[in-house]
Amino acid sequence: MSDTIRIEKTKTPKQKPDQNNLGFGKYFTDHMFVMDYSKDKGWYDPRIIPYAPLEMSPASMVLHYGQAVFEGLKAYKAPDGRILLFRPEKNMERLNASNERLCIPTIDTEFALEALKTLVSLEKEWIPASEGASLYIRPFVIATDPYLGVRPSTTYKFIIILSPSGAYYPQGINPVNIYVENKYVRTVKGGTGHVKTIGNYAASLKSQMEAYEKGYVQVLWLDGIERKYIEEVGAMNVFFKINGEVITPELTGSILPGITRMSVIELLKSWGVKTTERRISIDEIYNAYNGGLLEEAFGTGTAAVISPIGELNWDGRNMIINDNKIGALSQRLYDNLTGIQFGKLEDKLGWTVEVK
Amino acid sequence: MSDTIRIEKTKTPKQKPDQNNLGFGKYFTDHMFVMDYSKDKGWYDPRIIPYAPLEMSPASMVLHYGQAVFEGLKAYKAPDGRILLFRPEKNMERLNASNERLCIPTIDTEFALEALKTLVSLEKEWIPASEGASLYIRPFVIATDPYLGVRPSTTYKFIIILSPSGAYYPQGINPVNIYVENKYVRTVKGGTGHVKTIGNYAASLKSQMEAYEKGYVQVLWLDGIERKYIEEVGAMNVFFKINGEVITPELTGSILPGITRMSVIELLKSWGVKTTERRISIDEIYNAYNGGLLEEAFGTGTAAVISPIGELNWDGRNMIINDNKIGALSQRLYDNLTGIQFGKLEDKLGWTVEVK
Repeated sequence: MSDTIRIEKTKTPKQKPDQNNLGFGKYFTDHMFVMDYSKDKGWYDPRIIPYAPLEMSPASMVLHYGQAVFEGLKAYKAPDGRILLFRPEKNMERLNASNERLCIPTIDTEFALEALKTLVSLEKEWIPASEGASLYIRPFVIATDPYLGVRPSTTYKFIIILSPSGAYYPQGINPVNIYVENKYVRTVKGGTGHVKTIGNYAASLKSQMEAYEKGYVQVLWLDGIERKYIEEVGAMNVFFKINGEVITPELTGSILPGITRMSVIELLKSWGVKTTERRISIDEIYNAYNGGLLEEAFGTGTAAVISPIGELNWDGRNMIINDNKIGALSQRLYDNLTGIQFGKLEDKLGWTVEVK
Repeated sequence: MSDTIRIEKTKTPKQKPDQNNLGFGKYFTDHMFVMDYSKDKGWYDPRIIPYAPLEMSPASMVLHYGQAVFEGLKAYKAPDGRILLFRPEKNMERLNASNERLCIPTIDTEFALEALKTLVSLEKEWIPASEGASLYIRPFVIATDPYLGVRPSTTYKFIIILSPSGAYYPQGINPVNIYVENKYVRTVKGGTGHVKTIGNYAASLKSQMEAYEKGYVQVLWLDGIERKYIEEVGAMNVFFKINGEVITPELTGSILPGITRMSVIELLKSWGVKTTERRISIDEIYNAYNGGLLEEAFGTGTAAVISPIGELNWDGRNMIINDNKIGALSQRLYDNLTGIQFGKLEDKLGWTVEVK
């Protein structure tokens, strides 16, 4: 690993987009971080260069065999001007877990975090200050051998790009309706569902589109073996509050270990809320609903933080949760997590990392 | 769909590689076919242009969410100089099945085949004439929106590249040893295993590497639900000859419908060999082996055509098949299929398509 990051600044800075109309993942900053890998050199030539198209061989392995992994996190602008990251070391650890599953060489997590901070610092003017907006950070690794045999690549690129993004809920946090998927499967134990590899997301698109056509915002994934245990909601982890207890599916090898998920569990425990990680079936959810015990349900993820579920459709059986309003605990989690992330609340658990 | 293919010839033709040292998927010809897609225009601007790096946004959706599909087939040079393709319309039909599963707009199969033939014809000097060598053809589609939200892309590229490739068995066809995978799973019903999307291949790499380390050439995949029914071998379909009957796993939604698989079944039936598509468990294979009834086993795929299995290791139980020699039926299939493909045998079933 080379230790100095070469910086080549752009000569043609872009005009920054309208802060009140950012959307998500549409705009990109002036620079990106790039580092190469070869068998001989290991990871080498770390550099920050102007954001520009990649020159890729049409035979690049990532385009043919999908050998690629990624992460997603955000930089937040605090009211006092500090720039904060939320548990970024967890993203870098998970990136390496993904790398290992995909036969990609691991990356020094401290160096990767240093690179990320250096890039964010250079682009600090791009961090939106509008309410709820942030700078979305996308580290990713792609296989670059120009070769059509099926085997791990011998060359890679590790890239970090930045996208100023608007508030996830421009109209405020509203519950969404969810279709319980009974045809498609996200993944199965022994597969790649527990890591962030690109193929997981491609595989989910068809289900998402069919849910849209039925009038639903997202799908609830059931396990691929018994087709009854709950796994995730869309690309988020999922939590249920039943009779005062919060339950989330345990990590059995097909569920992504979300960093928001982990933080929600820790926060709930710190508040003394009974929180359990275990297998939970859709039948159990339906029974709890019928017994009047299903109090709240919500997804967790980097983009939305907390996404309340107002309605679940399971094979035509409709469950309206908490009168289709955000629950008190969901709201408290959202306020606390975003409060910590945006530097508005005291960070008692030491989760934020400042970018100088 | 535009109907005329624009052709821009290279001004700097490459030197052709040594015909006796081609390997697989390493060398690429002077030109490639490219066609773009946008929501407004549909598929447009079909063109053959010099083979060159693609300029890709670092935010291209294929790099982040793996929305991409591909095909693989070959052009063969017959002894009389004709250029032959093997059932290419089947590849184009399967490309569209893959497109549909991955939410990619379908492509007119006749036009795609016309494009493929035009490119192969232009590059005919690149088709190797050495024994067993051919021109490998790789059509693929990639999602190109520069966008980080998880949804289907609205723009795509359909590309065809060509790679002169050597005989799969430079030392003659030899049986390989196979490790029965008990930890990783290739895919599961409801997933994407029945289509050719890039993520399937990334997911398989770890299993393949661990098999190598144990001294095996490939893995035999079991189903992801009961972990006992046979699915594929490496990236090939698999056949077993037991007591005179040929059995191959039926297409239950997690197995790729191989074109060599289909052709093997049709050929066997035309020969009057009893051939059955049904679920078959590894226990049944082991019992047949112990009873002296497991006569042959082989993989089928475009690259190897027929790949005899000489040894299966199932949790330490070793099965040596046909004394680790190629079986008579495997050899007959190989000779007939390659004979038809290379235009050396009469094509009674009308499988080959000539490129003029």
